[in-house]
Amino acid sequence: MTLLDDSLAAISPANQNVATHTRRLLDAKTKPRGSLGRLEELACRLAAIYGQAQPSLPQKAIVVIAGDHGVSTEGVSAYPSEVTAQMVQNFVSGGAAINVLARQQHAKVVIVDMGVASPAPMTKQVRSCRLGHGTTNMTIGPAMPRELASRGIEEGIKIASDLISTGVGLIGLGEMGIGNTTAASAITAVMTGQPVERTTGRGTGIDDERFQHKIRIIERALAVNQPTSTDPLGTLAKVGGFEIAGLVGVIIGAAARRVPVVLDGFITGSAALIADSFNPSIRSYYIAAHRSVEQGHANILNHLGLHPLLDLDLRLGEGTGAALAMNLVDAALLILRDMATFSSAGVTDAGA
Amino acid sequence: MTLLDDSLAAISPANQNVATHTRRLLDAKTKPRGSLGRLEELACRLAAIYGQAQPSLPQKAIVVIAGDHGVSTEGVSAYPSEVTAQMVQNFVSGGAAINVLARQQHAKVVIVDMGVASPAPMTKQVRSCRLGHGTTNMTIGPAMPRELASRGIEEGIKIASDLISTGVGLIGLGEMGIGNTTAASAITAVMTGQPVERTTGRGTGIDDERFQHKIRIIERALAVNQPTSTDPLGTLAKVGGFEIAGLVGVIIGAAARRVPVVLDGFITGSAALIADSFNPSIRSYYIAAHRSVEQGHANILNHLGLHPLLDLDLRLGEGTGAALAMNLVDAALLILRDMATFSSAGVTDAGA
Repeated sequence: MTLLDDSLAAISPANQNVATHTRRLLDAKTKPRGSLGRLEELACRLAAIYGQAQPSLPQKAIVVIAGDHGVSTEGVSAYPSEVTAQMVQNFVSGGAAINVLARQQHAKVVIVDMGVASPAPMTKQVRSCRLGHGTTNMTIGPAMPRELASRGIEEGIKIASDLISTGVGLIGLGEMGIGNTTAASAITAVMTGQPVERTTGRGTGIDDERFQHKIRIIERALAVNQPTSTDPLGTLAKVGGFEIAGLVGVIIGAAARRVPVVLDGFITGSAALIADSFNPSIRSYYIAAHRSVEQGHANILNHLGLHPLLDLDLRLGEGTGAALAMNLVDAALLILRDMATFSSAGVTDAGA
Repeated sequence: MTLLDDSLAAISPANQNVATHTRRLLDAKTKPRGSLGRLEELACRLAAIYGQAQPSLPQKAIVVIAGDHGVSTEGVSAYPSEVTAQMVQNFVSGGAAINVLARQQHAKVVIVDMGVASPAPMTKQVRSCRLGHGTTNMTIGPAMPRELASRGIEEGIKIASDLISTGVGLIGLGEMGIGNTTAASAITAVMTGQPVERTTGRGTGIDDERFQHKIRIIERALAVNQPTSTDPLGTLAKVGGFEIAGLVGVIIGAAARRVPVVLDGFITGSAALIADSFNPSIRSYYIAAHRSVEQGHANILNHLGLHPLLDLDLRLGEGTGAALAMNLVDAALLILRDMATFSSAGVTDAGA
């Protein structure tokens, strides 16, 4: 058995009996039944994942995985590849959006270099799990060999496992990689069966002409590589990315240890599609932070049956949406922990 | 000049030139332009309100105003009137949802008794601004005399003014009053011109039969009192509530001192409609926290041109949605304050 096989075998569905118990606890609180809406649903979902009717507030981390994409030489992005490494440096310096928003939520940012074109600075603030200097251009052949995709997933499993061993109980997903919306669009087209023009968006911001070009590039990559939805590892290798492989691993590693993963936007969503295809129980560990502007993201959310917490027209990535949603996770758990009950507070309960 | 007249005269529109400056500051940050979506819009809106391109993080307060409603004797609510006073006691004890969520956001909770049927406990934790033992049944005549509505507004102005004088820079609105969705539905029907069946919801949770009854009660109140949209004070007096009068005042008092108000759900929205009708500049001080389950709330948001930050199927009130949204206010201001710029971080700017 490999680490991947072991981890997949360890995943069982979240415990709905525990969620039922949590629902009863919430119904005794001083508020009309269900009046905190999706915050109450979230509390029940978290309880089912942790297997505890009243979970403690978790320590939080956001794993931001960076990688470069050979396909970016095809001119699919508004930004050049070197921006990936520059942004990793920005993460290290603490000046990126994810640093700011993670600090606000008291979440640790874990920066991972899974294969930036120009290697990230050698600093203990960056975890190096390099699979290469960026993927191969997927319009010519597979983005990476199948065994490299497996290795990337296993690196991700180890990241999750290490974090959980130090006490982290909530993992947000983030990423950085110029060109990675192209990979995510290709994955989403394969795994959801939607045509490419329905899974492709404007990434960091491209004009109409470049947008049509991006669609043609993705269609070419699919024609050359012939990925199929029944082979998630093959799809990841053929049209994925190093950082997406790492994210798939983080998801699997977290679910294997009963830790919820907070998905961010489109790229992390494409990793969630791949992970779900390995083991459908895994989707019960997902918390969808937000609905991205990228149209492909809506397909992913529908496919996975997820209702995102926020809808703020975000399209940045890095885990920014995941960080924002962590505040709602805490809110849901605080309600469950700290609110008075009708009987403790002496409030008349109409049972409504 | 009365305090109300003075305050209305002091309100000027938020400063859009400052917002333009803030937009430029955001565009220099290390992210594709506009990629933080509505968080960036929120930062610009806050800058325009404060008249500062880069506002400090504000001290926060949530004003929870309680009052009882004569119309509750008509059986429009799932809960009896005594729950209003019981919940005020729960606010004092710190066990209600708003206490929990306000603590999470480091917001002070200001509890105000504007006219609970059984007076709130005499404690310095409750600000007493009682206008009576609850309003008159509005199906028989006006809920309160016109001068009492004015007095309620002025009490609210003083509450806002006192808070701002102690350094509060962000005021969330909350309320408690069994029967107050009935008043809010009536106000919304008058001020937006929508039929009552489109502005009425199920409040804390009533069945179909009681829902139809509630609509008939509101229609009767409108027929008896004949409120008009051109007379906001008259509408407040005829079909409003003591706590709604207080909320109108808090809004006016905050806007007069250039402090944003975070609206909560349907009840605070009905107060926002009344305040807006006094002075249309006031709506530029509104931050819509969330979209309530109550169908009348959508009419209010449309009428005021507001796009709420959250959509979590909340229908509790108390200011709970406002508290949750305060985290996004902080996030927007932290992005503006703490993110690196392309030039400071040495990141290539594609101008996208």
